[in-house]
Amino acid sequence: MSRAYNFSPGPAALPEPVLRQAQAEMLEYRDSGASIVEISHRGEAFLEVAHRTEADLRTLLSIPDDYAVLFTAGGATTVQALLPLNFANAGQTVDYVVTGHWGKTALKQAAPSADARIAASTEAGGFRSLPARGEWTESPDAAYLHVTANETIHGVEFREIPTAGDVPVIADFSSSIASEPLDITRFGAIYAGAQKNLGPVGIAVLIARRDLLERAGQPRAPIFDYRTQLEGESMLNTPPTWNWYMLGLTVKWMLDEGGVAVFAERNARKAALLYSAIDGSGGYYRNDVAIDARSRMNVPFFLHDPALDAAFLTESKAAGLVALKGHRVLGGMRASIYNAMPEAGVQALADFMQEFQQRHG
Amino acid sequence: MSRAYNFSPGPAALPEPVLRQAQAEMLEYRDSGASIVEISHRGEAFLEVAHRTEADLRTLLSIPDDYAVLFTAGGATTVQALLPLNFANAGQTVDYVVTGHWGKTALKQAAPSADARIAASTEAGGFRSLPARGEWTESPDAAYLHVTANETIHGVEFREIPTAGDVPVIADFSSSIASEPLDITRFGAIYAGAQKNLGPVGIAVLIARRDLLERAGQPRAPIFDYRTQLEGESMLNTPPTWNWYMLGLTVKWMLDEGGVAVFAERNARKAALLYSAIDGSGGYYRNDVAIDARSRMNVPFFLHDPALDAAFLTESKAAGLVALKGHRVLGGMRASIYNAMPEAGVQALADFMQEFQQRHG
Repeated sequence: MSRAYNFSPGPAALPEPVLRQAQAEMLEYRDSGASIVEISHRGEAFLEVAHRTEADLRTLLSIPDDYAVLFTAGGATTVQALLPLNFANAGQTVDYVVTGHWGKTALKQAAPSADARIAASTEAGGFRSLPARGEWTESPDAAYLHVTANETIHGVEFREIPTAGDVPVIADFSSSIASEPLDITRFGAIYAGAQKNLGPVGIAVLIARRDLLERAGQPRAPIFDYRTQLEGESMLNTPPTWNWYMLGLTVKWMLDEGGVAVFAERNARKAALLYSAIDGSGGYYRNDVAIDARSRMNVPFFLHDPALDAAFLTESKAAGLVALKGHRVLGGMRASIYNAMPEAGVQALADFMQEFQQRHG
Repeated sequence: MSRAYNFSPGPAALPEPVLRQAQAEMLEYRDSGASIVEISHRGEAFLEVAHRTEADLRTLLSIPDDYAVLFTAGGATTVQALLPLNFANAGQTVDYVVTGHWGKTALKQAAPSADARIAASTEAGGFRSLPARGEWTESPDAAYLHVTANETIHGVEFREIPTAGDVPVIADFSSSIASEPLDITRFGAIYAGAQKNLGPVGIAVLIARRDLLERAGQPRAPIFDYRTQLEGESMLNTPPTWNWYMLGLTVKWMLDEGGVAVFAERNARKAALLYSAIDGSGGYYRNDVAIDARSRMNVPFFLHDPALDAAFLTESKAAGLVALKGHRVLGGMRASIYNAMPEAGVQALADFMQEFQQRHG
C-alpha cells in the first residue's frame, strides 16, 4: 500500500516532510561526506544540530531560562526510574496521582528508591475520570508530586493540572507535549518520550527547573545524574544522534506550521470531530471517559458489538487507516491523533466510521 | 562532497547498502503504510524485525543457547551503571582491569553501587600496554571481573582475555564485537554499544549467561532489571525501534559478507597495512602502543611534528578521508577501521600518508 493515515499510539506518525528530508540526507549530511548517523556527536555538524534543536524546542514550548533541557535515552520510563534518585532523598516521600496505566508505571519505577505514595487514584472507577482536587491526600514533605498529563491507553487527559504549594509538580507529558500552549513555570519538571508528539522514537526530553537539579538526590552512577548530564550537554556518552536529529526536524516543522497555538486549534477540531462521530452514532460507537477528562490525543472507542471488531480493523486498513486496534488492556479501538495527524486523516476516519455503521448496521 | 572514507570512532561508518535500504524504506516499511519509525514495537512487522535481528546476531556471533541477548537503550555506559545493580550484592566487591579511558569509565559508573576495585591498571604507563596476568590483584569473592576488550581512545586491544576462575568475566566489546570469532563461553557477559562495529548509534547489546540473570542484585527500578527486561523481550518500554532495525540490517550485511571469520581476515589485513604505513615511515608517523597490545580497530598515530597536524587534517579531508582527528585526551590522529571500513579505504589512507610525507617531508 502507499502511505496511510497512521493512528498508532507511539511510535507514531511523523510529518511526511520530516521523513522526506531524512530520506534525502540519509547517505550524506550536508557536506560532511557521511550520513548524520555516521558522524561524531562531538563534531561541529552534530553539535549544530543539537544546539539548534534545543533553541527551537525552547521557542516552541516557551521554556524559560531558569529551566534546563535534557535530551535522554531510555524513554520516559527511564526518566521515571531516575526521578527519585535525582530529586528525592533516600526514603523521602514522593506523591503520585494515578489516572491510568502510565501513572501506575511511573509509581512502580520510583518505588524501589523512595517512599512512593498514591495521593489520588481513579483506578477503582476504571480510569475514566479525573480525581477531584479536594480529595487528594498529599504529603506536605513530599520531594515532588507526580502527575500524568495524558494517559495514552485510557484516553484520559489532565489539562488544568493543579499546583501543590511548595511541593514541585513533575508531569509526564509524553503524549501531549506541544499539543497546546503550556505554562511550564507551574511545574518543577516535565518530561516526554518523543515518539508521540515530538517525533521519533529513541529519545526523550526532560525540562527541569534548574534549582531542582541542585538537589543532592541519592547515590547513583554519573550517567544517571541529571546535573552531570546537564554539565555535559546531554552527551556524557554517545547520545542517540539520529533520533535527536529527527526530533530537531520535527520541532522545526511544528514551528514552521505556526507553533503550539496553531496545533492547539487543529487538535481541538480533530478531537471534536472524532468525539462527535462517536457520540453521534446512536450508541454504535462508544467512548467511556468522562467528558471533562477526555483526551484530545488518544481516543479509545468501542463498537456496540465486539464481534464487529475484526471487520472494522480489516476494512479500515483497506481504506488506508492503520493502527486503530485498541490496547490489549481495554480492547476495542483507539485512534491516536497527535500533531502530525492531519485534520484530513481524522475526517477520513469519521467518514469511514459512518460508512461502516451503514454497511454493517 | 560525496561520500568519503569515514574513520570516525563512533558513531562510525555504516555499510552503504544498509544506508541505501534504510533510505528506500524511509517513507514506508514493506506494506505497512508507514515508516518503520512510525509503527508500534508490539505490531507484527516490528516484532519480526526484532526476532530476526536476534536470530541473525546469534548466528553471527555463535551465541550459545544458555546466553540471553538483550537490546538496550542508553549505550554501553548505561550497561556499566547497571552491571553492579544486576550482578552484585550491595557492598560486594567487583574487580576492574583498567587498560584505558573506557575501563576507567566503567569503574566510575559502578562505584556508587559496589565496592569497585582496580585489579590491574596500565594508567601509570599511559595506557600503552596490557597488564601482565601474573600481576593482577583479584578479589576471590568478587561478583565479577570487568575488562575492556578494546580501548577506542588509547588504541589498546585485549585479544586473549584471561578467565578468572569462578569469577565471571564481563567484558566491554563496544569497539571490537564481531570483528573476529569469539568464544563467548569464556565470559559471564559481554556488551557493546552498537555504533562502532554493529552499526547504528542509539542501541546496545548485552549478551549474558542466563544463570547470572538469576542473581538477586540490588534494589532497582523494573526498567533497570535485566531479568525483567529479558522476560519482556527488551520491550518493557518503547525501545529505539529504528536503531534496532538498523542494527538488524547491519548484522544481516555482515552475514551476507561471510560472517566474522571473513571480517577477521579483512581486519587483520587492514590493521597490518596501516601499522606498516606508520612503522615504515622512518619516524614521520608514530604509534606508541606496545606491539602485542595494538588495536586492530582504532589506530592512534602522531606526526613527528604536531605543527603539521592541521595540514594533515585539511588535506586528508580534501582527499576524501574524514574524521581522522585524534581524541582530545591524546591529540594527534586516529583512524578507526571497523568492519564497515573497506580495505580500499585503509589503502587510500596509507597512500595519502605517504604522499603527505613526500609533500611536506
